[in-house]
Amino acid sequence: MTYTVLGTGAVGGYYGAMLQKGGIEVNFLARSDYDHIKSKGLTIDSPQGDFHLDQVNVYSQSKDLPQADVLLISMKTTTNDSLQELLQPIVKRGTVILVLQNGYGMEQEFQRWFPQAHVMGGMCFICSEKKGPGHIAHLDKGSITLAPMDESGLSMTKMIRDDFNQARVEIQINQDLNHARWSKLLWNIPFNGLSVVLNGNTKEILESPHGYNLARKLIEEVIEGAQKCGVNLDPDSTDKMLHYTKIMIPYEPSMKIDFIHKRKMEIEYIYRRPLEEAEKRGAHLPYIRMLADQLDFLDGQNNS
Amino acid sequence: MTYTVLGTGAVGGYYGAMLQKGGIEVNFLARSDYDHIKSKGLTIDSPQGDFHLDQVNVYSQSKDLPQADVLLISMKTTTNDSLQELLQPIVKRGTVILVLQNGYGMEQEFQRWFPQAHVMGGMCFICSEKKGPGHIAHLDKGSITLAPMDESGLSMTKMIRDDFNQARVEIQINQDLNHARWSKLLWNIPFNGLSVVLNGNTKEILESPHGYNLARKLIEEVIEGAQKCGVNLDPDSTDKMLHYTKIMIPYEPSMKIDFIHKRKMEIEYIYRRPLEEAEKRGAHLPYIRMLADQLDFLDGQNNS
Repeated sequence: MTYTVLGTGAVGGYYGAMLQKGGIEVNFLARSDYDHIKSKGLTIDSPQGDFHLDQVNVYSQSKDLPQADVLLISMKTTTNDSLQELLQPIVKRGTVILVLQNGYGMEQEFQRWFPQAHVMGGMCFICSEKKGPGHIAHLDKGSITLAPMDESGLSMTKMIRDDFNQARVEIQINQDLNHARWSKLLWNIPFNGLSVVLNGNTKEILESPHGYNLARKLIEEVIEGAQKCGVNLDPDSTDKMLHYTKIMIPYEPSMKIDFIHKRKMEIEYIYRRPLEEAEKRGAHLPYIRMLADQLDFLDGQNNS
Repeated sequence: MTYTVLGTGAVGGYYGAMLQKGGIEVNFLARSDYDHIKSKGLTIDSPQGDFHLDQVNVYSQSKDLPQADVLLISMKTTTNDSLQELLQPIVKRGTVILVLQNGYGMEQEFQRWFPQAHVMGGMCFICSEKKGPGHIAHLDKGSITLAPMDESGLSMTKMIRDDFNQARVEIQINQDLNHARWSKLLWNIPFNGLSVVLNGNTKEILESPHGYNLARKLIEEVIEGAQKCGVNLDPDSTDKMLHYTKIMIPYEPSMKIDFIHKRKMEIEYIYRRPLEEAEKRGAHLPYIRMLADQLDFLDGQNNS
């Protein structure tokens, strides 16, 4: 199977390079650093060993890409609006669309756009950043939880696991995509939004009793929202998540970085879609809703 | 009756100067601009006519002040902690303590500290700012709504009204202090907090559908909180308040100014006290509570 990676950022660039290094054929679609990657390749700094790929199959336009066996979607969800058109030339019958984005509801949307494809989710637990053109620093972790949309996707999920394992990427499989998505929202909903609105990192937020209290309330509401959507998250998750986040190194969530650089924030898929889904089922989530409104306000000011 | 004004800021400085200009004996307690006022007096710029008071009875320490007939409390509530001790030397039996501050519950606290005094509330509807030492710009409006703590204070309220009227300050009387306080919170709770957390002025907040929505939800919760406390605010207040605020000139609420200058914000009396009162009576006000936690977080970061 050949892999096509959309986006050569901190996530897609890393996993794509790992797959290629593992002996798998990979095509990349790049934007701003197309020229750099074309001539100089890709560089990965990693605690597991730095490496450089001289020769990279890189394209600047989706229409030039060969049709894909497996498509890794790793750009921010803020560009998803444009993906239906962009992906048209490269999705064939049976293409696997592996959604490595944060948020909720993307898989269902891709499946609607491309009924001929197998869509699955990939929850990345990775700390990495783009250092410059064609240059990515892998800082910590790196596993992916793969989740098929239903039972029929399970065997395909296992084949993809094998490829990633061959490339030394650790894979878990969660057979319940909704559970996997909500589990990830448990962290993304509180800490992405609070870091923007409170202008603080995870440590600053959790060391203040008020910040801690806000994070706790938001996590409790995520658990409530998940439950309305039929997903039972362990109620101990709240304390575990708070504890785990408090002891990790101070971290600026990606939404904060986007906000600072005046890029659009991923409010739609991290907040609006799960809110809509849970509220449709009778959930009352005022903290999440207020935070979403605040983020939308700030996003509007930032991009006006 | 002689008047003693605590604080020569935008509010106390203006009303004190108006009273003195109106022929009433006024004593001022000043801090940072004591020397300036002592030697150069007080200057008021006003659309109703600029004026200057050469000779001002100004003191730098409360222990030097004569005992007061009427005491105007016009410093920020963030210093209220220190007022029980500060006012001890100047409150006699029958002193009227007129609380010109924003928030909720100050009158009850003063009355507890000084059972020998008559405490009443004064809701100021004024737009004024301190320009420099001994220099205040009155920009717009200027009326005060006086409210006694109970019926027994009504006659005293009327005497004070007459003094202010003599000084060309417009006075309304509201016999229900709780109603008057909650009516003022209707504006202060949404716009002070949102202007800080969203880093916007009233116009920016209300021109965004998300900012508008946040303000509306907060106002609705103030009405709900008031109701639990036995105060019926007109449900049309929401639309009126939003409309009135949207058409007024863009305004930076005082809490925003305090935040920018890294001064402590008036969270305790504008948010915590009314929240406590309403929640004690079974109100559920998540938007106000979340906003209060966010403000306390930012206050902590600002003053750490």
